[in-house]
Amino acid sequence: MEINLPDVLAEVSACCERYEKALTGNDVAVLDELFWDSPHTLRYGATENLYGYGEIQAFRAARSAAGLAREVLKSVVTTYGRDFATCNREFRRAGVPGTGRQSQTWVRTQAGWRVVAAHVSMLR
Amino acid sequence: MEINLPDVLAEVSACCERYEKALTGNDVAVLDELFWDSPHTLRYGATENLYGYGEIQAFRAARSAAGLAREVLKSVVTTYGRDFATCNREFRRAGVPGTGRQSQTWVRTQAGWRVVAAHVSMLR
Repeated sequence: MEINLPDVLAEVSACCERYEKALTGNDVAVLDELFWDSPHTLRYGATENLYGYGEIQAFRAARSAAGLAREVLKSVVTTYGRDFATCNREFRRAGVPGTGRQSQTWVRTQAGWRVVAAHVSMLR
Repeated sequence: MEINLPDVLAEVSACCERYEKALTGNDVAVLDELFWDSPHTLRYGATENLYGYGEIQAFRAARSAAGLAREVLKSVVTTYGRDFATCNREFRRAGVPGTGRQSQTWVRTQAGWRVVAAHVSMLR
């Protein structure tokens, strides 16, 4: 299995940056687009566990747009072959103690690259 | 891409159970075996961020074997094609407030199924 094929790494890195921009801008349409529309999708958030695309979508729709800005401290994107990838980053939010960690597993679907599983937590 | 092919799902589920048993029994050799031996491997733990197989291995070697028992409350294994999978579970430890979440991304390497990225955190 080839790790970090340059074209695949570039594709996924662009998706991660698109996600980052959508997250901090609370662009719910893009966030919804980038998560896999499946009952198998899940997201462990900083304060909630969401199972299935429907729960994730409902969470996005209800979320306040305030306080989403963050500084990315470290980012590691790794691709495995042509269709699978992980994106892991550490981040900090102004006024929030500790460092956040965001882990995403990405899969290339027929519709494009999608997050199939995510986990966000704070390290204090 | 075929999701949850029965034979692949059975293989990965068995790996997850093997990991669970090794974790709660602090069987460091098996834990080391099941993580991908690569500088790309990473593990965001409940109290630390580890980058690369070497840091993960050093953490395992230094970890106390006490207090690792846990009850798995929920487990979701999903496979994508034949070579990629995610395992996500919620757990509880006696005397520890809140619920733990463990996310693992698994890849089939030439040596067998390995965890390439993991994230563990407590939800309080």
